[in-house]
Amino acid sequence: MRTSLFSRRTIRQGAVTAVGSAKMKLLLACCIVFTVIALAGPTASFLGWEQLDASLHRSSLPRKGYALLINTWKRNDLLKQSISHYASCPGLDSVHIVWSEPNPPSESLINFLNHVVKSNSKNGRSIELKFDINKEDSLNNRFKEIKDLKSDAVFSIDDDIIFPCSTVEFAYNVWQSAPDAMVGFVPRVHWVNIVKGHTDEYVYSGWWSVWWTGTYSMILSKASFFHKKYLSMYTYEMPSSIREYVTKNRNCEDIAMSFLVANATGAPPIWVKGKIYEIGSTGISSLGGHSNRRTHCVNWFAAVYGRMPLVSTSLKAVDSRYSWFW
Amino acid sequence: MRTSLFSRRTIRQGAVTAVGSAKMKLLLACCIVFTVIALAGPTASFLGWEQLDASLHRSSLPRKGYALLINTWKRNDLLKQSISHYASCPGLDSVHIVWSEPNPPSESLINFLNHVVKSNSKNGRSIELKFDINKEDSLNNRFKEIKDLKSDAVFSIDDDIIFPCSTVEFAYNVWQSAPDAMVGFVPRVHWVNIVKGHTDEYVYSGWWSVWWTGTYSMILSKASFFHKKYLSMYTYEMPSSIREYVTKNRNCEDIAMSFLVANATGAPPIWVKGKIYEIGSTGISSLGGHSNRRTHCVNWFAAVYGRMPLVSTSLKAVDSRYSWFW
Repeated sequence: MRTSLFSRRTIRQGAVTAVGSAKMKLLLACCIVFTVIALAGPTASFLGWEQLDASLHRSSLPRKGYALLINTWKRNDLLKQSISHYASCPGLDSVHIVWSEPNPPSESLINFLNHVVKSNSKNGRSIELKFDINKEDSLNNRFKEIKDLKSDAVFSIDDDIIFPCSTVEFAYNVWQSAPDAMVGFVPRVHWVNIVKGHTDEYVYSGWWSVWWTGTYSMILSKASFFHKKYLSMYTYEMPSSIREYVTKNRNCEDIAMSFLVANATGAPPIWVKGKIYEIGSTGISSLGGHSNRRTHCVNWFAAVYGRMPLVSTSLKAVDSRYSWFW
Repeated sequence: MRTSLFSRRTIRQGAVTAVGSAKMKLLLACCIVFTVIALAGPTASFLGWEQLDASLHRSSLPRKGYALLINTWKRNDLLKQSISHYASCPGLDSVHIVWSEPNPPSESLINFLNHVVKSNSKNGRSIELKFDINKEDSLNNRFKEIKDLKSDAVFSIDDDIIFPCSTVEFAYNVWQSAPDAMVGFVPRVHWVNIVKGHTDEYVYSGWWSVWWTGTYSMILSKASFFHKKYLSMYTYEMPSSIREYVTKNRNCEDIAMSFLVANATGAPPIWVKGKIYEIGSTGISSLGGHSNRRTHCVNWFAAVYGRMPLVSTSLKAVDSRYSWFW
């Protein structure tokens, strides 16, 4: 698995190591400083420590949970691996598989996945599993409204990306504080195309631009939490010309969702720092001309909205339990 | 000013230095890695760089701005210094001074502050200045409803705390993504009192407990953004027994606001990492028995609500423009 964690992942691994070592260095210093202050401080302030994790997890556990909305295409092995993992996350409430293949899912696949969710349905928790079978193969299928969804939160994910449950639960906690925002792990950014000198012409930039500048304006739906209301808005309220563009060009449904949310809230999304494990081969983003096609989407969508709704930000949501620099 | 940055500030200063030096170390490595990838990557992704800041600031500038809600008590010099600073922040829309002294504000003070806001009202921006004169000296005065408030965002601040404008604007941007949450700079936490063995008895803990555990459940209103709707909720919807407790004990109006917001949202607040400059002498928190009194408030308020509404979290909102670890 780790062998596939290349490019941007190498940066993150490095970061983790760096922070890890910083932790170790700081730990000793902290212990000394802390012991001194602890002795001087009011006893009451320190009673709770043995209960820290219990207290944190108890109070930050999802209340209504979240629905896993997973997009897949002829990669049953990845689908099995992915759902087997996410079904073990405590906050998961239901699994919705967007199925757009010409043939329906096989009996063996259905049986396997039913067994997985059933074996993880413990302690009064019952995980629902549903296939959303589509006749038309359109990227818009991924954002179709889910009827009778119990949870407000949707965790939209591609079938080839794995996050540790602790990372998913942390992002869900962040989303609970910002339920109208897109909250996720893969930031992207748009810039004004100053080379061509048009202030109303934009350029789509990938991870390196975000990493270098610390600025982003989109969170990709391949790994993000958002409110279920955006699913119906995408299908019934978003300009139909955008859905037609997505179907025709087989690209940019995630940018379309970012435009929709930004247009509805007038606020930026929230990027959560987390380790990503890619378990599949790279997708369309690895194909030539990808960036140009995405840039075309951004400009085309902005023209449809009559303005640029995306809002840039530099917010990084970090889990302070694992961050020792203050 | 810096000489007053003691206790927890020393940690933050250290953090800034550490990250600063890390920046320097990483900068060279990044430049090399980056140049290589830049040459290999699609040109379009890198067109925007010269415009990064402009683009960021343009799109993340406050749209409706925020109201400064400042609490003061017989410290005109601090009030002048504080408002002179915040009036220079681009997002500031209005200033509301909570005045609970027996004597009304002097003509000279009013003239000085009017001059300050007028001199900062440029480029079509007009900063409104209002005194909220109270006959009764109650800590509840700080959260009275503000009639005809144009902005949804309220930046509640004590008169002895200064944040750089860039930090305030960043926190305001975070609040825009989470308008129902309390978003601020001073986190506090409650724990279950396991020593007494009662799961329904709580302990209030200060900065060191938050720093050590990375966990918090409250953001103090001495430096936080929240939606203006919580002001009317505090006065008209919150149990009156809590307001009476605050008036009688002259403490915990900030904890009461944290309970109110947590009870309304069921979600945790958001702590924003930022440098604090204390320009005044320390307040009641430096008095003996402060922590015990705060613990009593937490337990008393939880009893009034019939449950513990506070939700713990470990989210730290960091400005990724100044954070180089990924």
